[in-house]
Amino acid sequence: MSRTYPMAGLPRQVTVYEVGPRDGLQNEAAVVPVEVKAEFVDRLADAGHKVIETTSFVHPRWVPQLADAEELLGKLRRRPGVRYPVLVPNERGLERALAHGVEEIAVFASATETFAAKNLNRGLESQFDMFEPVVTAAIDNGVRVRAYVSMCFGDPWEGPTPVSQVVAVGERLLGLGCYQLSLGDTIGVGTPGHVSALVEAFGSPERLAVHFHDTYGQALGNTLAALKAGVTTVDASTGGIGGCPYAESATGNLATEDLVWMLRGLGIETGLDLDKLVSTSTWLAGRLGRPSPSRVVQALSKG
Amino acid sequence: MSRTYPMAGLPRQVTVYEVGPRDGLQNEAAVVPVEVKAEFVDRLADAGHKVIETTSFVHPRWVPQLADAEELLGKLRRRPGVRYPVLVPNERGLERALAHGVEEIAVFASATETFAAKNLNRGLESQFDMFEPVVTAAIDNGVRVRAYVSMCFGDPWEGPTPVSQVVAVGERLLGLGCYQLSLGDTIGVGTPGHVSALVEAFGSPERLAVHFHDTYGQALGNTLAALKAGVTTVDASTGGIGGCPYAESATGNLATEDLVWMLRGLGIETGLDLDKLVSTSTWLAGRLGRPSPSRVVQALSKG
Repeated sequence: MSRTYPMAGLPRQVTVYEVGPRDGLQNEAAVVPVEVKAEFVDRLADAGHKVIETTSFVHPRWVPQLADAEELLGKLRRRPGVRYPVLVPNERGLERALAHGVEEIAVFASATETFAAKNLNRGLESQFDMFEPVVTAAIDNGVRVRAYVSMCFGDPWEGPTPVSQVVAVGERLLGLGCYQLSLGDTIGVGTPGHVSALVEAFGSPERLAVHFHDTYGQALGNTLAALKAGVTTVDASTGGIGGCPYAESATGNLATEDLVWMLRGLGIETGLDLDKLVSTSTWLAGRLGRPSPSRVVQALSKG
Repeated sequence: MSRTYPMAGLPRQVTVYEVGPRDGLQNEAAVVPVEVKAEFVDRLADAGHKVIETTSFVHPRWVPQLADAEELLGKLRRRPGVRYPVLVPNERGLERALAHGVEEIAVFASATETFAAKNLNRGLESQFDMFEPVVTAAIDNGVRVRAYVSMCFGDPWEGPTPVSQVVAVGERLLGLGCYQLSLGDTIGVGTPGHVSALVEAFGSPERLAVHFHDTYGQALGNTLAALKAGVTTVDASTGGIGGCPYAESATGNLATEDLVWMLRGLGIETGLDLDKLVSTSTWLAGRLGRPSPSRVVQALSKG
């Protein structure tokens, strides 16, 4: 199936921002050995990934799975041209990141009041008291900062998130100096027209990434809408692992393999080797002790 | 989540052609009792479906699951305004359909030489010897005929199917008098640009329907591309049951619930009640003894 079928109005090239090692593994109940994590990251780089979110400097009390962040960074076989960003929740996390020579971090904001309260213990407004010193200090130290905005399409408590509210949060993060916003559909409820409306409301798709969860099966259709609206960075998780706490991993992050199947068919360049992604997904599923939720991997394994 | 977010260039209204009772159930290994089938069809009509492909007059030797076709038709509580088409493979099947007062049938063609040989025991050309008398006699008897074209995007033996070859097969079926072509991605390998190219090559989207399988996770993105290209009829299977013999049911037909989630979010009218579809899917899963593969149903059941 090597033929490609381009579609009018889509970008020629897309950056897949791989979130499996961080966003994927952080939701795994059983602790994954650091050697497996290091091999996972290395396989992803070998498959052609140029940006792999590797771990998080969150307090180990909150995410025991990522308590080995420093150890993992020490074990990476870093490849030239590959970025290994790390999620950083606060100033303490940034200190750890700087001490370990991290060159790029990500911060995690909420687009809704209730999720800000539940996840960050802050308000929609007061969450910036937490980000501002982190982002400023990171940039002062020559570290690039990406910002996640979660619950951009709806949350379980407030219903659909107003587009203007997401734009307000996002513009503030960009104003702090973040180089990119990743617009997250944390509970997977968005549909393509909502995606178009949100991207268009920002007016500058080159500063945006999209981060879809496949909870309601909408992730790839929503990705197509985002590409049509000019977005060229898409978050995905090899193996489709991870996701929000409201659904099991089988309906978590968009699987990188399924995304790359679509992009490859559309003739959009990603630099990724689908065969290597599929074997990485299969390998990881073996380590996690359950089948890969990626449809592409499931289909090929039955081939 | 009642807000809608329309998207430019999409139709306002879509007909969901429900294939669960026929295309879905025909792939179930264990025979489903005729009472369960009749209740399934009735629940689908109650959820708002206006067209439900109910069964097939294929020889029971080939599809034992549908050996109860006549009995099922006798048990239907027909509702005014709802069509109950039946698949008919040959002249013998048509005789049975006419004898039971069927008002609409569907025939099943192949877009590729190899699948025509394997599935129909004919060639790409000689398959028409089989359809022509069926379609002609049906129309002469006042029966509407729909035509499925399978393997429109690729098959497991020949790779990608040339667009011109699909158009040639399809135009011939339309020329015989079929009112609609359902373009099937039987093995689920298509991507959105391929869908656009195929629909555009026909030049008359109002005569087309699309029939996607989610084997590689592409079904909903492909549906979006078809809608953009002007198609307003989409085949789907409540519960996502059924599919091709090359993948298990979990990666079979596009689930009606997941499709309706997208269409509802886009503000596209379908006349369907998503809550009733979800409860039908859950009910059916119970009868089949396994979880619904629909992502929407899985997500809501965890809610």
